[in-house]
Amino acid sequence: MYRSHNCGELRIGDIGRSVTLAGWVQKARKMGGISFIDIRDRYGITQLRVDESCPASVAEVSSSLGREYVIQATGVVEERQSKNEKLDTGDIEIRLTELKVLNASQTPPFTIEDVSDGGEELRAKYRYLDLRRNPLKKALMLRHRMAVEVRNYLDRQGFLEIETPFLIKSTPEGARDFVVPSRMNPGEFYALPQSPQTFKQLLMVAGYDRYFQIVRCFRDEDLRADRQPEFTQIDCEMSFVEQEDVLNLFEGMMRHLFKEVCGVDIAPKLPRMTWFEAMDRYGSDKPDIRFGMDISEVTSLVQGNGFSVFDSVPYVGAIAVPGAAEYTRKQLDELTEWVKRPQVGAKGLVYIKVNEDGIKSSIDKFYSPEQLQAVASKAGAKIGDLVLLLCGQKRKTQTQLGVLRIEMGNRLGLRDPKVFAPLWIVDFPLLEWDDETQRFYAMHHPFTAPKPEHLKLFYSDRKEDLEQVCANAYDFVLNGTELGGGSIRIHEADVQQRMFDVLGISREDAEYKFGFIINAFKFGAPPHGGLAFGFDRVCALFGGQETIRDFIAFPKNNVGRDVMLDAPSRIDDAQMDELFLKSTANE
Amino acid sequence: MYRSHNCGELRIGDIGRSVTLAGWVQKARKMGGISFIDIRDRYGITQLRVDESCPASVAEVSSSLGREYVIQATGVVEERQSKNEKLDTGDIEIRLTELKVLNASQTPPFTIEDVSDGGEELRAKYRYLDLRRNPLKKALMLRHRMAVEVRNYLDRQGFLEIETPFLIKSTPEGARDFVVPSRMNPGEFYALPQSPQTFKQLLMVAGYDRYFQIVRCFRDEDLRADRQPEFTQIDCEMSFVEQEDVLNLFEGMMRHLFKEVCGVDIAPKLPRMTWFEAMDRYGSDKPDIRFGMDISEVTSLVQGNGFSVFDSVPYVGAIAVPGAAEYTRKQLDELTEWVKRPQVGAKGLVYIKVNEDGIKSSIDKFYSPEQLQAVASKAGAKIGDLVLLLCGQKRKTQTQLGVLRIEMGNRLGLRDPKVFAPLWIVDFPLLEWDDETQRFYAMHHPFTAPKPEHLKLFYSDRKEDLEQVCANAYDFVLNGTELGGGSIRIHEADVQQRMFDVLGISREDAEYKFGFIINAFKFGAPPHGGLAFGFDRVCALFGGQETIRDFIAFPKNNVGRDVMLDAPSRIDDAQMDELFLKSTANE
Repeated sequence: MYRSHNCGELRIGDIGRSVTLAGWVQKARKMGGISFIDIRDRYGITQLRVDESCPASVAEVSSSLGREYVIQATGVVEERQSKNEKLDTGDIEIRLTELKVLNASQTPPFTIEDVSDGGEELRAKYRYLDLRRNPLKKALMLRHRMAVEVRNYLDRQGFLEIETPFLIKSTPEGARDFVVPSRMNPGEFYALPQSPQTFKQLLMVAGYDRYFQIVRCFRDEDLRADRQPEFTQIDCEMSFVEQEDVLNLFEGMMRHLFKEVCGVDIAPKLPRMTWFEAMDRYGSDKPDIRFGMDISEVTSLVQGNGFSVFDSVPYVGAIAVPGAAEYTRKQLDELTEWVKRPQVGAKGLVYIKVNEDGIKSSIDKFYSPEQLQAVASKAGAKIGDLVLLLCGQKRKTQTQLGVLRIEMGNRLGLRDPKVFAPLWIVDFPLLEWDDETQRFYAMHHPFTAPKPEHLKLFYSDRKEDLEQVCANAYDFVLNGTELGGGSIRIHEADVQQRMFDVLGISREDAEYKFGFIINAFKFGAPPHGGLAFGFDRVCALFGGQETIRDFIAFPKNNVGRDVMLDAPSRIDDAQMDELFLKSTANE
Repeated sequence: MYRSHNCGELRIGDIGRSVTLAGWVQKARKMGGISFIDIRDRYGITQLRVDESCPASVAEVSSSLGREYVIQATGVVEERQSKNEKLDTGDIEIRLTELKVLNASQTPPFTIEDVSDGGEELRAKYRYLDLRRNPLKKALMLRHRMAVEVRNYLDRQGFLEIETPFLIKSTPEGARDFVVPSRMNPGEFYALPQSPQTFKQLLMVAGYDRYFQIVRCFRDEDLRADRQPEFTQIDCEMSFVEQEDVLNLFEGMMRHLFKEVCGVDIAPKLPRMTWFEAMDRYGSDKPDIRFGMDISEVTSLVQGNGFSVFDSVPYVGAIAVPGAAEYTRKQLDELTEWVKRPQVGAKGLVYIKVNEDGIKSSIDKFYSPEQLQAVASKAGAKIGDLVLLLCGQKRKTQTQLGVLRIEMGNRLGLRDPKVFAPLWIVDFPLLEWDDETQRFYAMHHPFTAPKPEHLKLFYSDRKEDLEQVCANAYDFVLNGTELGGGSIRIHEADVQQRMFDVLGISREDAEYKFGFIINAFKFGAPPHGGLAFGFDRVCALFGGQETIRDFIAFPKNNVGRDVMLDAPSRIDDAQMDELFLKSTANE
């Protein structure tokens, strides 16, 4: 062992001890005849002191040091003259008797500080140096702690962690698979799993009762900001349970994590909100309930007054922005432009200011002050509030109002990352109709069970009936982000067959893609259900961050490249030949 | 929840309680007017009783049941008339008041018993049914327990579990990589990691000090029996340590596992044997030390007597097989054929029987009884033992003797899977010379450090000097199987460069393949080392098995196929086009 102690553990009680530390030079400075070196490791920083009482060799080595040199330092713990309250070791310093360079370092291309002077691209290239910075170290230590707590909680609840394969079969439903050519089976490919969904269901068929896994998943999507081609899930499944059992167990897990990792107490019973209520009130199936500003439908209050914009649409909705009645014309114009951006997609914005001295609105030539007051009241506006209205197709307009609500929440500082407001969204629609392809898609996935009370509707041939079928599906939402979701699964072969029929998946196709699971269900599948959490995102939110990249040791950039490794890269022709492949990239 | 209790928990103290169980029909039988149903879940088996006191509907459902039906049964716990001591629940039964079929089952294609009547291929196809059998359930539960204990042990030792990427860069050193074509980067490929070796070293450079991960690895090898293309490692690395620190910490971990998982106490300090001693004494770098039968060199005792077979070779070695002097001529002929098989590769076999009434040998016309007795004594033979001799090149012959030794250990029943005899093999040669390609290869991998006392030899240009260089490398061996291994790594850029030079890896090649790690080492790499255990095999041996397949939930067969999924498989042309690939498999 190169050290007797680490750089974070020495205290006033250690004074007089002879110790050896090893670590990196955070900084070195000279004050008169005395040199101070801050030595850093994972555990902290300790001050080393070189003065006239130290051997000449120590002074000599000391003056040769640069930033990030790896050193081994032996000396005696002494009380510091000027203490540093910001450091855990700030009461002491080590007067050196020996100093050795274990490895020199080139000057790093950016500073290893909490806020670095390096740009994103440069830090990505030298990720191993960026990882030395405190914020990243804290993020990865939080992630480790989260994983430990998740595993021990689920172990205590009787769950078994069972590893499922990574080289599986490609099933072209949903997002694109990454594929892996098989040398041993020419012309054939494995796929990397988008999730262990079918395996965990097979484990339920096999009687394993409670399964979980913290597991890597892969999705070959066109990357959006903050998406990674490989990501980690907390994947869980249980047998002989109903929805309520799953929700109770996993809100218990999340409560445990909040308590153990963040020291935060979460209500013993989380709110449950139906998908329909979430859409109507928040214009989102992942509502941020840290603040109000609920959406109100005002259609009936504004139609029939000759304002054709409102008269020609099926839905008009409003939110009341607290204390924003003072918005200037310029601010309102800017907000109007903002909602018209393609990312929001509204046609325009109508406002009603509820001032001390009366109502003021962009549409006051169509409506009486009383009518406008009625709209404002319906939206819950008080004096000093600004009511914002959007109109159009119902769900689309609600979604736009939802985006606007979040934006106003941000502008008003209502979204404190230290406040945690989790809830469950339940009763999702089972199916989503797609106008373009004129077919239904599974809102979660094709193994999600319809609610038993909707089974009759599920067997109807009418599109309107099928649109009303709700699923035993649920999402765990925190502060406007979906952290996880799942469902009670179909366990009966005939219901599963009906699902494939509704989705327009032919028997041959179903057999080809899901044959093994359809077959498995014929041999005694128990009622079962589960869910999965996006572990990267759970860690980020627990760490008070919105982006996941700092919570992944070696992430990829926006086009799926690892700039440190310079991957992906070309492989040589011999390897291509062995795989029976030819590239057409340059043809 | 479909149940109030599981099928393994009811006891005599529960008599009189009304309970609901859910599970699978293990078997159902009728005795007179009474039916008994054994209901099974992960936790155990409970007997259900249907008699004339039960509602008619219960009797009716009961008579419709088949094997593996999923049922829900409600009734009252009663004391059994004839108790079953083999079952934890054998004191009680449930007299049913309600019985419901949750899901029917086709008759499984093989029996769900400890020993099934199904063949290997059939059971692989219906893996989800095979997994219902007790031996597999126990294997996966053991694996879960092992993972929990490994993680908690290492967590308590200050290790952080840090996830490393799966989509990395192909480095054509060593075994073949599986590759993953990148759609977003046409013509380029990711590789799946053979191990996180470089990442864990980068994490040490980044200052994470103690890293571990239980992680999937991939190797596209021509499969041998009991090899899997994907396998799991316990992967570990530590900074500021010397070899002895690593060995002590991880034998502590293994001792913890033996104690917690198997209830076995292992000696507080494991034996350490040099690679040279292991080869000389056991003809193997993974010796089974549960039994003796050490190899002895007898070259000097047998040369110069006119027996040209021995005179013409550099090495003659012997083992003494206890109590095997009674071997018949036929048995000895069979053994001679056995060592001549290509898997062993010996030219022939010489024996010396040490009988009560004197020595008998296949070479007694060349040697006096005293000479033969001297050979037998050197081999440690007592009266009643059979001495077996092989000859040829030293290491090759020792290896053959090692294989013969294991075979004789098996035949004599000396290899009890319930006995655990772990040890460390240390001081491996750093380099292996390959005659065919006329170059050195790294015995472990190119990042393994030479022993500091051999540094001068390492910089020599003479082949003989380089062959003598030992590595700070170590293997953990249990009962004749290597469970893990590792090394102290090179942390100095110039030593690493020398290593590449010795291996004949050009600067350009090294830069292309390992550029990022060579570069990382310029920015303050600490002294570090680590190791990795093969988790599948560790689980198998702890479970008293030799083959790993039962300890993997969904293994692949000998040609890398998942016969349940029918993977790998063809992908459609559209997907090939998206990946800029053409298959040449059918050209």
